[in-house]
Amino acid sequence: MEQQRPLILISNDDGIAAKGLAELVRFLSPLGDIVIMAPDGPRSGYACALTAAEPIHYQLVRRVPGITVYKCSGTPADCVKLAFHTVLDRKPDLVVGGINHGDNSSVNVHYSGTMGVVIEGCLKGIPAIGFSICDHGLNPDFTAAGPYIRNIAAQVLEKGLPALTCLNVNIPVTEELKGVRICRQTKGQWVNEWENLAHKNDSHYYWLTGNFENAEPDCEETDHWALNNGYIAITPTTVDATAYGLMEELKEWFK
Amino acid sequence: MEQQRPLILISNDDGIAAKGLAELVRFLSPLGDIVIMAPDGPRSGYACALTAAEPIHYQLVRRVPGITVYKCSGTPADCVKLAFHTVLDRKPDLVVGGINHGDNSSVNVHYSGTMGVVIEGCLKGIPAIGFSICDHGLNPDFTAAGPYIRNIAAQVLEKGLPALTCLNVNIPVTEELKGVRICRQTKGQWVNEWENLAHKNDSHYYWLTGNFENAEPDCEETDHWALNNGYIAITPTTVDATAYGLMEELKEWFK
Repeated sequence: MEQQRPLILISNDDGIAAKGLAELVRFLSPLGDIVIMAPDGPRSGYACALTAAEPIHYQLVRRVPGITVYKCSGTPADCVKLAFHTVLDRKPDLVVGGINHGDNSSVNVHYSGTMGVVIEGCLKGIPAIGFSICDHGLNPDFTAAGPYIRNIAAQVLEKGLPALTCLNVNIPVTEELKGVRICRQTKGQWVNEWENLAHKNDSHYYWLTGNFENAEPDCEETDHWALNNGYIAITPTTVDATAYGLMEELKEWFK
Repeated sequence: MEQQRPLILISNDDGIAAKGLAELVRFLSPLGDIVIMAPDGPRSGYACALTAAEPIHYQLVRRVPGITVYKCSGTPADCVKLAFHTVLDRKPDLVVGGINHGDNSSVNVHYSGTMGVVIEGCLKGIPAIGFSICDHGLNPDFTAAGPYIRNIAAQVLEKGLPALTCLNVNIPVTEELKGVRICRQTKGQWVNEWENLAHKNDSHYYWLTGNFENAEPDCEETDHWALNNGYIAITPTTVDATAYGLMEELKEWFK
């Protein structure tokens, strides 16, 4: 009996038409059969949001040998949940989010719809990786990143990942990629987050913007340092949010 | 000069009209001055989602001594970000989400808009607490929880919380609360997550539902065990998602 190829479920938050999604498929299709369940439009900043207040819908877009594409009216995390429930005929071997147009390093992990895909895959017990390139434009050049992306995915397919962990992979825009670095999440915060725009004499309208203030720009362990120095940043990420180090102190508080 | 009272910023994901929000204000107003910036309608399941693709708007609803209430068209996390940028005249001493109508323990921390409020407060460097009651109805009875909620908030106001940590507090529905327990996040997953509903001969519409399968129902350290046994579960929660334990192994992969 012929051995089945690995099954890779892909989604994103930039939507079904994004270049990053097409490029990801191009890089990963040599590794296995691919099922895409992607949002039918942009869902940037959707985090792990779920659609709770209305039904969602999915639809077959096209099917070619080894690649099946669906679009879905829901959030990135909805897409993963719904694919498991409907179109997948077996458990996937890998769940991949991306390639996101924009940086999901540091605290952005909490807001990222791409990482929403990845966290959902991880919560379902499947090895999961999010890929993002630090370019918000419509047409980033993913060429140099391709071999790295395929290698990272191949390694995870071969070795798996421990329970409750996944990978957040961010790719710098640089003349020459220097390789990969294993990093931790940079400490810092977004500032100047809102741009005011008056509308019909009402000054209380705001548009999200902002810039990230890195609290530890010289720390070589961090994902921002890696990105600023030409490396692909691989940040191993946990879905167990427990702050274990705080448990004993809190027990004292409530004795 | 009179000492300023502590400033408490409150938001939620059930929206400005939710009973849980009014009850939270009742419980916490003895502890300080309160500013509410709450979504103008329900935002359950919004996680840390941000509104990136359109502007958001806020509006003063009412002001009485010690309590100022605004509503906002954005997500729970937007509300916190926008309050910091607009209506707060100083850094708050505490950010509180809730009281959510529904359980945010275990993996729900990733989907919860209430915890979106809390994570955002924490990322801004402010001690932050999310309160949730395990009752999805419109009219839970919060009475018995009140003194616990006030005490937990008072302790955090007095002692603070370490950087990058916050509290996820869940309250069971029970005849008699037995007290509080310091817990870790329960391992498990949601199953049977979609209810199919055909619409105009199209069978691809689904409504989110599901039940949670606890992978460790007998483990007394977990938040689910606490809730199932009549205790308020306090789960210390980190916003540093790095899986530190995986870093060395990954470095071997990419040597």
